[in-house]
Amino acid sequence: MDNRQLEDLLASMTLKEKFGQLTQITGELYVGKVDDEMVETGPSYPGHVLEEETLYAIGSVIGASSAKMTNRIQAEYLKKSRLKIPLLFMHDAIHGYRTIFPIPLGLSCSWDERILRRVAEETASELRAAGIHVNFSPMVDLVRDARWGRVMESFGEDHLLSGNLGKAMIEGYQKVSDGRISPAGVAACLKHFAAYGAGIAGKDYNTVDMSLREFYEYYGKPYEIALQEKPRFVMSSFNTFNGVPVTASPAMLKEILRGQYGFEDLLISDWGAVAELMKHRVAGDGREAAELALNAGVDIEMVSTHYLAHFEEIVEKRPDLLRDVDAAVRKVLRLKNELGLFEHPYADEAAEDTILLNPDALAFAEEAGRRSCVLLKNENETLPMRPEHRNVVLVGPFARTRELLGNWACKGRFRDVVSLKEGLKQADGSRSVAAFDTLEDCPRDVLERCDYIVVAIGEHWEKSGEGHSSVKLEPEDEQQRLIRAVKATGRPYACVCFSGRPLALQDIVDDMPALLWCWYPGTRAGAAVASLLTGQATPSGKLTMSFPRYSAQTPIYYNEYSSGRPANASSYSSRYQDCGIGPLFPFGHGLTYAGATYSDFGISGSRITDTEDLKVTFKIRNPSRYDYSEIVILYIEDLVSKTVRPVREMKAYRVVEVPAYAAVDVEMSVSLEDLKYLDADLRRTVEPGAFRIYVNDLDRPAFTIEY
Amino acid sequence: MDNRQLEDLLASMTLKEKFGQLTQITGELYVGKVDDEMVETGPSYPGHVLEEETLYAIGSVIGASSAKMTNRIQAEYLKKSRLKIPLLFMHDAIHGYRTIFPIPLGLSCSWDERILRRVAEETASELRAAGIHVNFSPMVDLVRDARWGRVMESFGEDHLLSGNLGKAMIEGYQKVSDGRISPAGVAACLKHFAAYGAGIAGKDYNTVDMSLREFYEYYGKPYEIALQEKPRFVMSSFNTFNGVPVTASPAMLKEILRGQYGFEDLLISDWGAVAELMKHRVAGDGREAAELALNAGVDIEMVSTHYLAHFEEIVEKRPDLLRDVDAAVRKVLRLKNELGLFEHPYADEAAEDTILLNPDALAFAEEAGRRSCVLLKNENETLPMRPEHRNVVLVGPFARTRELLGNWACKGRFRDVVSLKEGLKQADGSRSVAAFDTLEDCPRDVLERCDYIVVAIGEHWEKSGEGHSSVKLEPEDEQQRLIRAVKATGRPYACVCFSGRPLALQDIVDDMPALLWCWYPGTRAGAAVASLLTGQATPSGKLTMSFPRYSAQTPIYYNEYSSGRPANASSYSSRYQDCGIGPLFPFGHGLTYAGATYSDFGISGSRITDTEDLKVTFKIRNPSRYDYSEIVILYIEDLVSKTVRPVREMKAYRVVEVPAYAAVDVEMSVSLEDLKYLDADLRRTVEPGAFRIYVNDLDRPAFTIEY
Repeated sequence: MDNRQLEDLLASMTLKEKFGQLTQITGELYVGKVDDEMVETGPSYPGHVLEEETLYAIGSVIGASSAKMTNRIQAEYLKKSRLKIPLLFMHDAIHGYRTIFPIPLGLSCSWDERILRRVAEETASELRAAGIHVNFSPMVDLVRDARWGRVMESFGEDHLLSGNLGKAMIEGYQKVSDGRISPAGVAACLKHFAAYGAGIAGKDYNTVDMSLREFYEYYGKPYEIALQEKPRFVMSSFNTFNGVPVTASPAMLKEILRGQYGFEDLLISDWGAVAELMKHRVAGDGREAAELALNAGVDIEMVSTHYLAHFEEIVEKRPDLLRDVDAAVRKVLRLKNELGLFEHPYADEAAEDTILLNPDALAFAEEAGRRSCVLLKNENETLPMRPEHRNVVLVGPFARTRELLGNWACKGRFRDVVSLKEGLKQADGSRSVAAFDTLEDCPRDVLERCDYIVVAIGEHWEKSGEGHSSVKLEPEDEQQRLIRAVKATGRPYACVCFSGRPLALQDIVDDMPALLWCWYPGTRAGAAVASLLTGQATPSGKLTMSFPRYSAQTPIYYNEYSSGRPANASSYSSRYQDCGIGPLFPFGHGLTYAGATYSDFGISGSRITDTEDLKVTFKIRNPSRYDYSEIVILYIEDLVSKTVRPVREMKAYRVVEVPAYAAVDVEMSVSLEDLKYLDADLRRTVEPGAFRIYVNDLDRPAFTIEY
Repeated sequence: MDNRQLEDLLASMTLKEKFGQLTQITGELYVGKVDDEMVETGPSYPGHVLEEETLYAIGSVIGASSAKMTNRIQAEYLKKSRLKIPLLFMHDAIHGYRTIFPIPLGLSCSWDERILRRVAEETASELRAAGIHVNFSPMVDLVRDARWGRVMESFGEDHLLSGNLGKAMIEGYQKVSDGRISPAGVAACLKHFAAYGAGIAGKDYNTVDMSLREFYEYYGKPYEIALQEKPRFVMSSFNTFNGVPVTASPAMLKEILRGQYGFEDLLISDWGAVAELMKHRVAGDGREAAELALNAGVDIEMVSTHYLAHFEEIVEKRPDLLRDVDAAVRKVLRLKNELGLFEHPYADEAAEDTILLNPDALAFAEEAGRRSCVLLKNENETLPMRPEHRNVVLVGPFARTRELLGNWACKGRFRDVVSLKEGLKQADGSRSVAAFDTLEDCPRDVLERCDYIVVAIGEHWEKSGEGHSSVKLEPEDEQQRLIRAVKATGRPYACVCFSGRPLALQDIVDDMPALLWCWYPGTRAGAAVASLLTGQATPSGKLTMSFPRYSAQTPIYYNEYSSGRPANASSYSSRYQDCGIGPLFPFGHGLTYAGATYSDFGISGSRITDTEDLKVTFKIRNPSRYDYSEIVILYIEDLVSKTVRPVREMKAYRVVEVPAYAAVDVEMSVSLEDLKYLDADLRRTVEPGAFRIYVNDLDRPAFTIEY
């Protein structure tokens, strides 16, 4: 459809048809409830019953899936719709559609934009094959509080990394070529704008309050970065921000998102969030709710239908909004046109099966799973298992389960999953692997014969994710008892843990000689983890979120501000008296089997200027047989500044391929821009003085430079 | 000294002498370390050694106490000082000097300004008798997070109550008559300005970040209220506020405190806080630190001595600051003059003994102790003990101890304290009371003979207070085991708990049929608590701080903002999935033995106007033999507003004397001012609409009104 046709179409629309395009509903309103292919993801908002004329003027559908189902709904819709503008289908495939990849927090521990981009590409292919055009991903909400269940959907606590990984996923989803989303791509929806991760006390849907400086420097920054990749959608967040629900906030949505961050495309509410303005009690009824959201710049209302129910009163009272409505509808039509829907409204049902779970995607899922795991502890090279470990007992609630997809696994099926037991057996057929849910289940002779035990613990996948905030992050008592019982056997043993969030391990960590943190690795979980346990590959992930020692040591994050009384042994320092200082495992922590060393540090100068970056150079030597990816993190520390600065902040990182037995030279840059910050008056500034540069979490700075 | 003489004195001062008046040091610099009569309350800041000329130009001393000691220091000082301007002595007597009253958080549970005022009056008398002129109290920092150790020093989570109680204490300390602090009064120092209680994650000295709206509506409000009573001092807080340490923040200290809140008197730093600007890394050296603090309006530097070390460079660079310095010195001299120090620099050593621990003060300490206790639970009238309970076993770590003063008990001595065992024995000499630290210590025959058990548990006094943030608020395992063992005896039993903060009782509360929360009651602890246990008086306190169920359910407070997904049984609501909804015991909770009923509710109208308040009236009937004080709390709920409002907010409270067997009519007002709030643009506003009015924590509103 050319632009002229599109404008003619827009001109021919009734006001109801326009508001229909700005409304999204669930698919069962067209074809009834079909359990396996409809996903409900939140509370229902009955609202008013849509009469047929309205139902067939709707613009998009959430949650329907499979080529057959989306085609059936599309056909039904196009048959009865006056203007026959095809429906957009949207879905939440946040770490894969049918082929499930590690949860986003796990993926972020690879630090590798290439990995994230490809996850998005594979997901987009499967989505498009299933007739879905828009994916509600990535989420770049900064997270500092493991109590919040949605940390699993995030990329961790650093704004720069979160923004970059979000950007990579948008690129992978949209696969733009010649300025258009490719036929195997989907529109990305960057979410949730903004600061949803800062809910007080880690409680989902809770109030958010912060200074604008904190927002621009940290919580807003990942959006600012990811928006550079031009996602076609942004979703507004559930939370209030400084007293106003974001869904009703022109300050957030018009001034910051559109004005300062330059977002020009479609803004969609979160599930029922327009209706929830009444629960927030900023709207007395549905009309007020719809007017507030429209006024704030929300183009599309998700699931609730107050735009459609009240548009006549609203445009009568606020005729100025009509221009916004036309602009929004135009964007919807243009996106449908960009996706080729006017010409090809249907998915190819025959092709779907060849695309879902294809071998390339599965192989990549295994690689992504490996790269997401983080080796937190490895005393005396407990891991990997050695060749002489022939009789392995695998024990624990995660030993045999296939429920390793993590929450929000979209169309992932447990039957597709490789369990840890299966993974270990496949990794080395010559090993004996006996797996049990509990140590009591393990026959005595098997235990006596065994020469290595793998304890598989974790937090059930349903305990993290949306709505699943928790106050208890400590592993269940039963799992702690299991670990101590295994220790009592005297056999060498290692722990693997599956979880959607950091857990609080202080009381059990000393009984874990080795600990491999696996998050939820997805469809190829067992294969990925087994390859690391058996030493076919080395773990290489590094944490993107700090691990608290106890639940109540939250929020906790690496880039905290300098205190006037930095934590030390004194009672009068910034610490808890009944808990060690700092996190149990910090941001950036992660071990490998490679034993690489850093050396030959150099820097191109000692003074940074407006015009010239400084180059930091060093050599990484890999004395091992592992080809792997070494994650290198560069931090700066501002020694004195007008406004308080973080004790340390990441300014650059690299994922460096380090071949076996090789040495690699690395160069990283520090620019004046990296030293700048927003001062208390929100001016971007840098003051003359000294700065320290650190590479990774070394105890001492690599260099001190001056500006 | 008349004003002319005072100006002449000021004019005769050298610059060093002026900066001397703006410096506070510890007393041992004059007379050496004398353990019992010097208090060190924080880290030391060696800085530079003060030469004799400087030492005898200093303006004030912190921590020295007793008439003899302050006189000794004063005499030594006046002998060698050129201008012989007497020293001001300052101290931290936050809940009594030698006679110790309940901790402030306990006192606040009386909700009674009369109690707080008299505590301050008694404290001032003792302080002045000991030669001390300034008290670093009250603290009105709003607190929402029981992990912070300094909640014990606060008046809880409501800004209105905190402000009013702070104001009452200032009045009590200063005892102003004819515009002057009376001879038995001391200058009050309101602290810590501001928002120190909002440190992230309840960690002391931690970063504070919030919107200005949150500050003006909540964290700043108690100061705004208490400042109406004109405390002679305000102390700046340790924390950063939105990126700047308050000690270096003209925005906080000049614009808000002095400009908007109208504070005109002396501003003093907290302990070492000027030096700590270097730790915050906003100052590169002591000169910068001093300049930043001076520039922000800090009149007096406490303990560190960078003002004195660097004043020459500073005034050379910033001659504009000289005017501020003169103004500050003038305020110091005027205060010394107001206190009569020029004429009477010494305390009356002979009178001191008759004032400390005088019987009136002790009797009042017992009353204050009773009024601070909160009866949290009382199934089947387990409390009070009945006459037939003749043989009582008192058991637990708090059964026999005299360590019931709470932290920061100034010159309180354990030997002065009535233990719970002593209190119970004295309350009714005819009862047999056997007390043991553990149940194992209790001989079997005593246990078998006993007909009532009191279990005395708690958190050791040193575990709360400054620098004592905690991640574990759950009672120690041993105490939980004790309670279960007592339960297993089958005897009737009640629990009393001593603590400096709310504890997290979810896992033990069901095993406590009755629970009397005593905080730390002070010198007369055992007598006060025993009078309640034995039914000589009824508990009447109500909580001013919410009790979390678990440590990690913090921060938690009653006036949270409305969520778009209010907590309910659903997974998609604002709650923790592994913890009940809301606090275990909410703000405003507290039982009595009286069984009073509320009735005859009436309201003077259904519509509020600019000119007329609404009167809410009701009757309280006390069917019991107890004369007591019923705490009545009036909340409003704004049904719809442009900016999100709290689910409920306290707007008025009354402490109503209710005689035995009597009925009392109560009238409370609601004005339009009570309905106003700061909107997102910081405008004070009220919108037409409906508001609900609640009295106490009734499940349903008493009235709905309109504006």
